[in-house]
Amino acid sequence: MILTGDRPTGPLHLGHFVGSLRNRVAYQHDYRQFIMLADAQALTDNMEDTDKVRRNVVEVALDYLAVGIDPAKSTILIQSQIPELAELTFYYLNMVTVARLERNPTVKQEIVLRGFERDIPAGFLTYPASQAADISAFKAALVPVGEDQIPMIEQTNEIVRRFNRLVNRDILVECKALVPEIGRLPGIDGKAKMSKSLGNTINLGASAADISAAVKKVYTDPLHLRVEDPGHLEGNVAFIYLDAFDPDQAGLADMKAHYVRGGLGDSIVKKRLEGVLQDLLAPIRTRREEFAKDRGQVLQMLKEGTFKAREVAARTADEVKAALGLSYF
Amino acid sequence: MILTGDRPTGPLHLGHFVGSLRNRVAYQHDYRQFIMLADAQALTDNMEDTDKVRRNVVEVALDYLAVGIDPAKSTILIQSQIPELAELTFYYLNMVTVARLERNPTVKQEIVLRGFERDIPAGFLTYPASQAADISAFKAALVPVGEDQIPMIEQTNEIVRRFNRLVNRDILVECKALVPEIGRLPGIDGKAKMSKSLGNTINLGASAADISAAVKKVYTDPLHLRVEDPGHLEGNVAFIYLDAFDPDQAGLADMKAHYVRGGLGDSIVKKRLEGVLQDLLAPIRTRREEFAKDRGQVLQMLKEGTFKAREVAARTADEVKAALGLSYF
Repeated sequence: MILTGDRPTGPLHLGHFVGSLRNRVAYQHDYRQFIMLADAQALTDNMEDTDKVRRNVVEVALDYLAVGIDPAKSTILIQSQIPELAELTFYYLNMVTVARLERNPTVKQEIVLRGFERDIPAGFLTYPASQAADISAFKAALVPVGEDQIPMIEQTNEIVRRFNRLVNRDILVECKALVPEIGRLPGIDGKAKMSKSLGNTINLGASAADISAAVKKVYTDPLHLRVEDPGHLEGNVAFIYLDAFDPDQAGLADMKAHYVRGGLGDSIVKKRLEGVLQDLLAPIRTRREEFAKDRGQVLQMLKEGTFKAREVAARTADEVKAALGLSYF
Repeated sequence: MILTGDRPTGPLHLGHFVGSLRNRVAYQHDYRQFIMLADAQALTDNMEDTDKVRRNVVEVALDYLAVGIDPAKSTILIQSQIPELAELTFYYLNMVTVARLERNPTVKQEIVLRGFERDIPAGFLTYPASQAADISAFKAALVPVGEDQIPMIEQTNEIVRRFNRLVNRDILVECKALVPEIGRLPGIDGKAKMSKSLGNTINLGASAADISAAVKKVYTDPLHLRVEDPGHLEGNVAFIYLDAFDPDQAGLADMKAHYVRGGLGDSIVKKRLEGVLQDLLAPIRTRREEFAKDRGQVLQMLKEGTFKAREVAARTADEVKAALGLSYF
């Protein structure tokens, strides 16, 4: 059982594709996979723009379908429509101290990132309990996350162990982080992370013209001024992207050698990159447009996925409450 | 609309009778009244003894029925069986900062009382959000509470106002504390508060022998050593109880005058007190025993009340989520 998902706060991009979406398409053949649109969690720092969250639930679902996530194989669910996740969060809050939450490195880092300082919304400090609820509700044993999210997985397992010890039964399941082999994709500007807020993304739904414009801006080797100069590969985003997406890795190896030797201009590299990205994204864009024609059907798919997921989460919530003595009727 | 209730952690006693139960019996004729058995909240500091909480849900319900709370007039509900209360809590956590929760005087005081220091369970720090959920779920405009709980009501209203402002509509209702005229009943030992943990209570289900034994221990006037000495009324628990429960207040006034003058022994006062308490508690005990014969029926009553209450709470949760943009299907 795998739990994964996204905060629906904007369109997904190549960074998501490399870091998670591509893996999900592979996992869905071998695992039961729940993919959560974490709209309730997205609100913790988007209370002033709830409309953005709502809108992006369907947009992100379209991205999922476009890359080949198959709702017949993966269960796609909307977090806010499963009250049992809030219920589990409520009980888990009794199983973690304030001091422990304050020590969580991911929470600490994000508090700085979001500039909360002393005025952290309580929902932000306590979100590891909510994440523990999401993971444990589906009894997920594997959770694909980036390296920076490993402390959240540890916190989940602490809560799971504490609960099981308390009720003296193994009701909840410990989970393992599944860290993707390929790390983070840099932004087109060469910054370490492709991120909507940095404005350095190529979105999955990008038009051919968008892709073309983005490739022109891709950061290469600032020391490679003349074609005959030797070029550098480290930090060269054009080659990092080619590494990630070029299906002809042998041809790419030849091109790299040429670039390093000197005599190969950036424009040739970028032309190859544009071809690769256009080839990668054209079918995704077409599928996306196809699915976008019938949003009613996308919502119906989300409704069915959420319903299926709710049955699983409700069963876990019932088990948890019964173990705490909270079942009467 | 009134919301009131108890943490089911032990049998109710004369202190509850004076401070709240008696009022509830009166209110139920004039108001729609929800009475909550706050089992989920009781867990915040009873995680190690969940069985106590579970057991006392039915015991406290029996106390309610015994004093004359009528389930046809008042809706009695079990908190944990209404997931929408946890759901509202979840969203309200985004509407209050950690700093604000830490400043809450009631929370501060109870942290000291329970000896939590730095290791406060997160669920304890955040319980004002849970209380705001309970109150606002039923759109209660009146909340009967003791003086010490007034900061909790203020915190609820802050959340209510913040939410309404955020969504630009008056969806939630502000509430008022309804502080009972008669304050706290002292314990039989003369301590300021009758409380199970102090072991100075007379329970509503007390047997005739229990009452008799308790009255013998009632604290009177330590300076009143000989019958002929003048006695004092201040802090004299026998007279405080007679003030609260004696139906013959004129006769009581005569007795007080005699006591102050001198020449009236404590044993005479206690005899009157015992008569008053036996008369008060005998019918309560009888009704309690009657109801206790069929616990299945008590559970059925709780099930129906909880079902009715859940409909109300679910409606509020739906309104809240819709206002936050979290409705899709």
